[in-house]
Amino acid sequence: MNTRIVLGIQYDGASYRGWQTQPGGGTVQDTLETALRRFALEDVATTCAGRTDAGVHALEQVVHFDTALQRDLFSWVRGVNAFLPPSVAVRWAHATPHTGGEDDFHARFGAVGRTYHYVLYNHAVRSPLLAGKAGWVFRPLQLEPMQAAARHLLGTHDFSAFRAAECQAKSPVKTMFDVSITQRGHLFVFTLKATAFLHHMVRNIVGSLIMVGNGNQPPAWIAELLDARDRSRAAPTFMPDGLYLAKIDYDPKWELPQEAASLPLLP
Amino acid sequence: MNTRIVLGIQYDGASYRGWQTQPGGGTVQDTLETALRRFALEDVATTCAGRTDAGVHALEQVVHFDTALQRDLFSWVRGVNAFLPPSVAVRWAHATPHTGGEDDFHARFGAVGRTYHYVLYNHAVRSPLLAGKAGWVFRPLQLEPMQAAARHLLGTHDFSAFRAAECQAKSPVKTMFDVSITQRGHLFVFTLKATAFLHHMVRNIVGSLIMVGNGNQPPAWIAELLDARDRSRAAPTFMPDGLYLAKIDYDPKWELPQEAASLPLLP
Repeated sequence: MNTRIVLGIQYDGASYRGWQTQPGGGTVQDTLETALRRFALEDVATTCAGRTDAGVHALEQVVHFDTALQRDLFSWVRGVNAFLPPSVAVRWAHATPHTGGEDDFHARFGAVGRTYHYVLYNHAVRSPLLAGKAGWVFRPLQLEPMQAAARHLLGTHDFSAFRAAECQAKSPVKTMFDVSITQRGHLFVFTLKATAFLHHMVRNIVGSLIMVGNGNQPPAWIAELLDARDRSRAAPTFMPDGLYLAKIDYDPKWELPQEAASLPLLP
Repeated sequence: MNTRIVLGIQYDGASYRGWQTQPGGGTVQDTLETALRRFALEDVATTCAGRTDAGVHALEQVVHFDTALQRDLFSWVRGVNAFLPPSVAVRWAHATPHTGGEDDFHARFGAVGRTYHYVLYNHAVRSPLLAGKAGWVFRPLQLEPMQAAARHLLGTHDFSAFRAAECQAKSPVKTMFDVSITQRGHLFVFTLKATAFLHHMVRNIVGSLIMVGNGNQPPAWIAELLDARDRSRAAPTFMPDGLYLAKIDYDPKWELPQEAASLPLLP
């Protein structure tokens, strides 16, 4: 019987064309699978929990793959990291049984919740130390109106207003478990947790919340956008720089050694 | 009469060969002076408060230069930033009189204190989101012994034990006003404030404090190193990645619009 190995992967997406493998390479998946092949000396095909776009980061992406190799689990961390560039790392490895049946662990279909952070820098002047790591808005933003607006997103809704045209999801109906916005000086952190997200959904929501934060729209506008289900009425897709796939939730029975969803950055 | 313009400069030093201009270019000063020349349409020679090494960052480097140009102050921010790459930015500009006398503001000679942060990531696995932004130690570190060791650095000492061979300072005697080490999860932040620092002094001190934190040396070892004044007995120079020039102190009479020395990063 093969083993299904589950990996926690962190990456800085600034220099990648997104997660998913492409013919010309240059994606996180291409980079990871090349390192896995060099370590395992066999082709390894990975399945991820959530495909991220170009420029989007992951605190903890989750992937799985099947292998007949018998290796010490931590060697899938240390050994593969030796073949990865500084911008990608395997953070942990976990082994699950692979029977080929429907009860096997599955990084994508087994996910019951996904958490994203969006980090926004609000200052008259851009910050080189946050370049590629945070979105930037130079007009002053107010926290409270954005928080009031965000409450309209909670619960089960048709999120078509925030769905990219090329989105391949079967249904635009998702359940938003949690939306929080915190401010620390010039930084705003938006945290969204839902069953799943439509393509560009977080960046489209953040773009629209910014329109509320800068006073161009009232908080109730977000409810109007949801009701209208019309992408053209919401704000443009905001820049990818500040978006972090933070955490994927699974049934606790898998006992994955997952890390906290908090950003590893600083006071 | 000319004006002496003072600028606050922030940069991510990861891709630079340090601050000071070099024949082949590739330094922060070269990059800044090129942008100033494109904005001012004249050569601009800058003087900085503290030259940083390759890979070292600045939250707020301070520079001055003299010019006869009459420009709106904020245009020295916005206008020059338009010619700078994402890794460097002018954060503020301030005008002071330039008489040519000894009472003029001087970025280097007028500095009465300098604050550096060193950010250290202590985890079995490296973090791609901190690559180039923090030092990394995979063996577990204990906070309290490092704090006890650091107290030996306070006050006026001959810091020859932590001085690079190529250091050009006139005297190895400096006064350390403050040394603090804080821990937040896997991150340690070392903050050192002194009149001035010798070449590689912060990185050499951090390297030696790590030897205490990992249990290889007792806290009193730092006092022994200071007494011996022998560079070869202290730890090797630690990696530049986590070092940030945070704040330069001047006489308040200059009324510089300086920013807080805190790192602009995250919880």
